[in-house]
Amino acid sequence: MTIMLTPMQTEEFRSYLTYTTKHYAEEKVKAGTWLPEDAQLLSKQVFTDLLPRGLETPHHHLWSLKLNEKDIVGWLWIHAEPEHPQQEAFIYDFGLYEPYRGKGYAKQALAALDQAARSMGIRKLSLHVFAHNQTARKLYEQTGFQETDVVMSKKL
Amino acid sequence: MTIMLTPMQTEEFRSYLTYTTKHYAEEKVKAGTWLPEDAQLLSKQVFTDLLPRGLETPHHHLWSLKLNEKDIVGWLWIHAEPEHPQQEAFIYDFGLYEPYRGKGYAKQALAALDQAARSMGIRKLSLHVFAHNQTARKLYEQTGFQETDVVMSKKL
Repeated sequence: MTIMLTPMQTEEFRSYLTYTTKHYAEEKVKAGTWLPEDAQLLSKQVFTDLLPRGLETPHHHLWSLKLNEKDIVGWLWIHAEPEHPQQEAFIYDFGLYEPYRGKGYAKQALAALDQAARSMGIRKLSLHVFAHNQTARKLYEQTGFQETDVVMSKKL
Repeated sequence: MTIMLTPMQTEEFRSYLTYTTKHYAEEKVKAGTWLPEDAQLLSKQVFTDLLPRGLETPHHHLWSLKLNEKDIVGWLWIHAEPEHPQQEAFIYDFGLYEPYRGKGYAKQALAALDQAARSMGIRKLSLHVFAHNQTARKLYEQTGFQETDVVMSKKL
C-alpha cells in the first residue's frame, strides 16, 4: 500500500478547492478567528489570493495523494520560492479525505514529501496548524517538525 | 507598586525602537526563521512597515509601562482596527526591561491592558509569541489567552 504524490490535475484541483475552501472556513471559525457569516467568503478570497493562476501559479506545487496509483486519498500543496535564503518551502495545505484517515497514510505522504522536497533542492519545510488540531500537531511532532511560533487570543 | 500604561513619548519611542529591533532580530534567528546576517535589516524593515508614521501611525497604540509613575519598566504596543468584525486588537509587542522581570509586573501590565482595551471598545486580544519563549507562553496562559495557531518547521 503506497502513497504517491502525483501532480494535481485540473479536474482534481476543482474538487479539492471546493472541499478545502469549505474546510478552511470551518477551521477558522472553530479557531475563533473568523465569524461564521464571513468565513466562506473570506476563505474563497484567501485561496484566490494565494493561487491567482490556480495550478499554474508560479512556485506553488500541488499534488493529489494517490494510493497504489489509483485512489485519490488526499492532497498536498507547498510553496517554494527558489531564492529563499534557507531553501525553505511552506506547506500551505495537506490532508486526507475522511475514509482514508487513521491508516498511517499521512506519515507515508510526509515521507514522500521529504523526498520530493529534497529533490527540488528544498532544505527546510514549514507549516501552519490550528492549535485545536491535536492529531495533526502530534503527527508533525512525530515526523520531526518543531514549533517556532504560536498565536494566542482571549475574549475580554 | 503599580504598573501604569502611559502613552509613549517620542524620546521613549526612539530608545524602545532601537531595543526592540535588535531583540526581535535575535528572537527570529533563535526561532530559525531568519539567518543571523539578514536579521537586523529584516527586523528594521518590519517595524518601518508596521509603523510608517511612528507613534502617529493610525490605529496603533504604544505605551511605556511605568512603575509608580516614574521608572519606565517596559513597553506595550497594540493595533486596533475600529471596524474589526470582532472588535479584536493585536498585541504587536509587550515586554519588560531586564531589571524589572520576575517581579509580577507583567501580570499587572496585562491586567492594565485589559482595562484600557475594554475602555477602547476592544472585546478580544490576540498576540504572537515565539514557541521557544516558555515564560511568556505560561504568562499568557495564566492570564486567559488560548492558543489558536501554531507554526512549525523542520530541516531536511
